[in-house]
Amino acid sequence: MAVKDDVADLPLRYRTPEAWAEQVLAEPLKLLNDHAHLEKKAASNALELLNRWPEPNPPENWVAAMCAIARDESEHLGVVTRLLSRRGGKLTRNHRNPYANELRTLVRLGEGDRELMDRLMVSALIEARSCERFDVLHHHPAADRELAKLYRGLWKSEHGHYHIFIQLAEQLASPRDVRTRWDQMLDAEAKIIAEQPPGPRMHSGVGDT
Amino acid sequence: MAVKDDVADLPLRYRTPEAWAEQVLAEPLKLLNDHAHLEKKAASNALELLNRWPEPNPPENWVAAMCAIARDESEHLGVVTRLLSRRGGKLTRNHRNPYANELRTLVRLGEGDRELMDRLMVSALIEARSCERFDVLHHHPAADRELAKLYRGLWKSEHGHYHIFIQLAEQLASPRDVRTRWDQMLDAEAKIIAEQPPGPRMHSGVGDT
Repeated sequence: MAVKDDVADLPLRYRTPEAWAEQVLAEPLKLLNDHAHLEKKAASNALELLNRWPEPNPPENWVAAMCAIARDESEHLGVVTRLLSRRGGKLTRNHRNPYANELRTLVRLGEGDRELMDRLMVSALIEARSCERFDVLHHHPAADRELAKLYRGLWKSEHGHYHIFIQLAEQLASPRDVRTRWDQMLDAEAKIIAEQPPGPRMHSGVGDT
Repeated sequence: MAVKDDVADLPLRYRTPEAWAEQVLAEPLKLLNDHAHLEKKAASNALELLNRWPEPNPPENWVAAMCAIARDESEHLGVVTRLLSRRGGKLTRNHRNPYANELRTLVRLGEGDRELMDRLMVSALIEARSCERFDVLHHHPAADRELAKLYRGLWKSEHGHYHIFIQLAEQLASPRDVRTRWDQMLDAEAKIIAEQPPGPRMHSGVGDT
C-alpha cells in the first residue's frame, strides 16, 4: 500500500465531520485526558508486542521499530499531560476506550503470523484514525493556538507510526492476502468509528448537531 | 537522603566484587539480552505506576517524572537491543528476574501511600544497583570499548532515575518514617543481591572463583 505524507491519502473509509471537532473541543480538559490515556496505551502496546513477539522474523527491523514507537509515545504522553496539567486538568484513574476494544475483537487470536499481522493492522488503523482526527482538530476554528500546535505537531509522528505498522504487517503474508485483510479491516474500522457514542474523546462519534 | 553524582555515594550495602564482572562479561550476548529485558521492564514499570496512581498528591511532578522515565527506558531499550542485534544476538522470549521479584515481595500491598512509597524505593534500589553494576562493568578490563562506552553512557541516566525515585518516595511519609523504611530496604536489598545465583545477568550473584 502506498503511503504518502498527506491526510488525504489516509485510506480511511469514514470521514470525520467538522461537527465532531466542535463537540469535543467544547471540553478540552476531557479531550486532553482521553488523549493522554491513548498515548500511554500506545506506549504500552509497543512494549507488549515486544513481550509477546520478541524476535519474529519477518518482519525485519521489528525490535528497533517497537523501541522507537514506545519512546515516541512516552514522549507524547509527557507533552499531552504537561498541557493537561498546565490547564488545571488531571489524568484520571479510569479510561474507557470502546473504539480500540472493538477493533481488537477483529484480531484472529492464536493464529501465529496472522494474529501478529492483525494486531499490526489494528495498531495502524488506530494511528491513522488519530492522524485524521488531529488534522480535523488542528484546522478547526474552535481549537486555540496551543491546541492547534499540539495536534499539528503530533500528526507527523503518528503518521510515521501508521506507516511503520502497515509496512511491518505487509511482511507477514502474500501481497494478495495482505490486501484482502486490510480491505476487511478498513471496512470494519469505518463501521466501528461511525457507531461510537459521542463525547470528549479522540475516537468518539458525532452527537446530534 | 543526600544523593551525589558519584558511585561511591550510592547507599548500597553490598559491594559487587570484580569477579562478578569477569564472569558476566564472558557471555556478553546473554548479558545484553538480560539487560534489554530490564530496560523493557523499567519502561513498563513507569507506565504501570501511572496506571495505578495516575495523579497522587504528593508526590509533586509525578506524571512528568514517570513519562520521562518511560521515555528514557524505551530509548535505552533501543540502544541495548541495537548492540545485541549488531553482535548477532537476539532478544529472547522468556526472561527470569529473581532479584526484582524478591525485592517486590517487600512492598506492603494495599496500604495506599505506604505501598506507593515501597514501590518507589524498590524502583530506586533497582536503579541504584544497576548503576553500581554499570560502574563495575565499565571499569573492568574484560569489557571491550563498545561495552565500556555503553555502561558509562547509561550510568548517568539511571543514576538520575534513582535520584528521582527516592525523591518522590521521600514526599510520602515523615522524614523519620522514610529513613526507617529506606534503612530496612537497603538491608534487604544487600541480602537479596548477595544470594542471587550466578549467571550472565545484570543482577546475578557471584559464582565460585
